[in-house]
Amino acid sequence: MSEYKKSERIAAIVKILTDNPNRLFHLSYFMDMLSSAKSTISEDIDTIDHMLMEMGMGRVVTEAGAAGGVFYLPAGSKQKYREFIDDLCIDLSNVERIIPGGFLYTADLLYSPGTCSMIGEILASCFAGGKPDYVVTVETKGIPPAFMTARALGVPIVICKHDSRVTEGPSVSINYISGSTKNIRTMSLSKRSMKSDSKVIIIDDFMKGGGTARGIINLMKEFNAKVLGIGVVVATKQPEIKLVDDYFSLIDLVDIDEVRDTVRLEVGNWDKL
Amino acid sequence: MSEYKKSERIAAIVKILTDNPNRLFHLSYFMDMLSSAKSTISEDIDTIDHMLMEMGMGRVVTEAGAAGGVFYLPAGSKQKYREFIDDLCIDLSNVERIIPGGFLYTADLLYSPGTCSMIGEILASCFAGGKPDYVVTVETKGIPPAFMTARALGVPIVICKHDSRVTEGPSVSINYISGSTKNIRTMSLSKRSMKSDSKVIIIDDFMKGGGTARGIINLMKEFNAKVLGIGVVVATKQPEIKLVDDYFSLIDLVDIDEVRDTVRLEVGNWDKL
Repeated sequence: MSEYKKSERIAAIVKILTDNPNRLFHLSYFMDMLSSAKSTISEDIDTIDHMLMEMGMGRVVTEAGAAGGVFYLPAGSKQKYREFIDDLCIDLSNVERIIPGGFLYTADLLYSPGTCSMIGEILASCFAGGKPDYVVTVETKGIPPAFMTARALGVPIVICKHDSRVTEGPSVSINYISGSTKNIRTMSLSKRSMKSDSKVIIIDDFMKGGGTARGIINLMKEFNAKVLGIGVVVATKQPEIKLVDDYFSLIDLVDIDEVRDTVRLEVGNWDKL
Repeated sequence: MSEYKKSERIAAIVKILTDNPNRLFHLSYFMDMLSSAKSTISEDIDTIDHMLMEMGMGRVVTEAGAAGGVFYLPAGSKQKYREFIDDLCIDLSNVERIIPGGFLYTADLLYSPGTCSMIGEILASCFAGGKPDYVVTVETKGIPPAFMTARALGVPIVICKHDSRVTEGPSVSINYISGSTKNIRTMSLSKRSMKSDSKVIIIDDFMKGGGTARGIINLMKEFNAKVLGIGVVVATKQPEIKLVDDYFSLIDLVDIDEVRDTVRLEVGNWDKL
């Protein structure tokens, strides 16, 4: 008989599982920690799974077999995600966010842990089936959403840099052409950053012409990595034809009119591809 | 009478509180969500607080009064933190991490959500009393630990850049001298990044001479910000006198001997200042 009450055991199990999305825990981990029988922990897991699902807060998935266990899948309800994106659109439509040159100030949202957690969770939900090994991004503003996507998927991030620094050892560099400005830029990645033959997803904060994403795809070829998909927080509607084929976006930027002071945004294709 | 059992209510409350460290929730939030009386939710909170504390997983703190409520404080036990840092030292002592020039490869640890969460939690615990408004860092490798520190403190991050991009509007730039290489570098911060007269802490992955931290401090003066403290993941023992006075470090790098292939590390002063 466990020395802990059911409600106490559940407090500890929820904390550990939801802190480590997509990480598999053997039931014995909780059995030892809480001095409980397997059947007790299994019942606790069922209770947690039911309640989280009912509240739209994700699932606890059980994998059978000797190597099996349970993991937390941060899959909230589509409706909850949609409401979050609608609110984000309203916030981003504020004309005070217009920056000369047709840009939108988004850093405050990307840099807020609460908002960025939800962005990462939604982007992760687009790719949950593919089981990537890494989430790849390029410095700087894409790092927080990429990191929170990686956290939701339970994998590390890999950060491409615009200069190859001496502090990370040998690196691979490529040149790429910025899709919007047509400038040639360089992107580097430390050779230690990822194992060869990995599966990756690419996450960035913003996509216009798709040149940066195309650059990352080319850099991934040097690591023999398979790109499972691309996800961005905001994509511009124009140019419609981008340098990459498919990508998920949470929000599409239709138009910034600096003369009339208006911003038009639409919900992206995050739940459609 | 609540339609949910105590164990079900606790599953939902733990998920919400621990997902949002240091964010205050009114009891009415949980009362409405779980159709429960105030006394019921209060008892649930007590159960959660006791259990998390017993497991070394933090606290749920109650603030009394009309504007009061409860929040999750991710304050694990000092012993648990110390064991984590000891393990980190062992991992970082691996001679394969040596990079020519006296550097240590640390990106894989900083870029892993699980490890980086704990790093952020420990760094946050150094500053929890000061109630900062922002966590400030400089691109690139410091961003994940700074972001997870900010998450644990429930505040946004602010990222200084090495070039001022057009996409974030007007910015303030300063020059600073790298403490170790004596090169002059530039650091910029968008004027929209933070409110004037804020309180901040500075987080970075690595400190050698302290020049970067000194640069951030000078940049903060331009925003009338008060710097409450500095925290880094790894600091070098030499030079002993750095360009900043006090800082917390999780780990001190004593020596890298590229000839004998040895790395010597010590536990830093994270629990001492």
